[in-house]
Amino acid sequence: MDRKMIPIQTLRRLPVYLHYLKSIRQNCPNISATAVADAFGLNDVQVRKDLGAASGSGRPKTGYNTEELIEQLEECLGCRSVTKTVLVGAGNLGKALLSYDGFSDYGLDVIAAFDTDSTLTGTLISGKPVLPMEDLEVVCTEKKIHLGIITVPVAAAQSVCDQLISFGIRAIWNFAPTILKVPKGVLVENENLASSLAVLSQHLQAGRAPEAIEQ
Amino acid sequence: MDRKMIPIQTLRRLPVYLHYLKSIRQNCPNISATAVADAFGLNDVQVRKDLGAASGSGRPKTGYNTEELIEQLEECLGCRSVTKTVLVGAGNLGKALLSYDGFSDYGLDVIAAFDTDSTLTGTLISGKPVLPMEDLEVVCTEKKIHLGIITVPVAAAQSVCDQLISFGIRAIWNFAPTILKVPKGVLVENENLASSLAVLSQHLQAGRAPEAIEQ
Repeated sequence: MDRKMIPIQTLRRLPVYLHYLKSIRQNCPNISATAVADAFGLNDVQVRKDLGAASGSGRPKTGYNTEELIEQLEECLGCRSVTKTVLVGAGNLGKALLSYDGFSDYGLDVIAAFDTDSTLTGTLISGKPVLPMEDLEVVCTEKKIHLGIITVPVAAAQSVCDQLISFGIRAIWNFAPTILKVPKGVLVENENLASSLAVLSQHLQAGRAPEAIEQ
Repeated sequence: MDRKMIPIQTLRRLPVYLHYLKSIRQNCPNISATAVADAFGLNDVQVRKDLGAASGSGRPKTGYNTEELIEQLEECLGCRSVTKTVLVGAGNLGKALLSYDGFSDYGLDVIAAFDTDSTLTGTLISGKPVLPMEDLEVVCTEKKIHLGIITVPVAAAQSVCDQLISFGIRAIWNFAPTILKVPKGVLVENENLASSLAVLSQHLQAGRAPEAIEQ
């Protein structure tokens, strides 16, 4: 409980800054908020506020010590602790996520995948075991899992969500393109690829930027 | 140019309604905005407005004809036309997207992937050819591609983005966790998995829902 609560919109930008800082750490022992803002073409008041939320103020003239700032951002983003998670639904998207190696940078450890398909269960995908749904409860409770990833088809998503919550899950990363009903205190983060596609498609059809009608 | 411009936030919700309507089309010839709202636990004023933007008003008492509404949503979302696209970066995430079969529902056709890795070029991933970067220009211009998907590492993302734009791309779906600089008129839709993870991680660490401090 020693992490500060950081506003959601700030939190979403921090991984971008962190990536950048890691790329320049060799050459820049110090960095100012203005330099970070310039690198991304962002407003420097915004960047100063974002970095301040994670780290406190930079020093006048020298700015932030780059290594210290990286450390503080990693702390804020939970990169320095390991969050164990389970993934339900080992279809194409599930397989993709299991094989994606970027999550470990953010402290995410997918310990197992679950599926109803008996041709998949018992196999390994990118070194992770695929287990039958019947094992979900015992794994979640014994390993004290609090984060679940849902990559099942829409028709199964709510039922999987309900099961996960009954087994102690408090945060859900939902890739099924539907709205999940959850009790208060459970957080759902939706990753809806179809929504992004809809926005891109309208832009191309209209031949102009839709920001003009952003609500 | 016969598609209406729909506000972005509405557009993001339409694929969810569409999925639901398809699931109930056999049993429900008519459906009201209220029934859709109830199915997702959403506010019915919101849903009425969203459906109205895509389709016009439902009829009093009977609501919408389900098949007509599906057709109109598909029209709005560009599902009924094919958008050809190229993907740059055939690493884990790129492979995952190439093998994901949900995109064709939304009219997306990835015609080829591009990579600098000569052990990948010349191969097929899920039936799609992986081509060397040198071929990017000729494919984009000859096939009149306007949408590009970026799944390269951060360090290469801006350079790939610049190339795509110079070859005629007007909309970019960016999976690299960085902010791309683009000229006016080009739309970037960012899919930053690390940002979602940061939000979920904070929720778990804090033991309470971060909505309380949503800005």
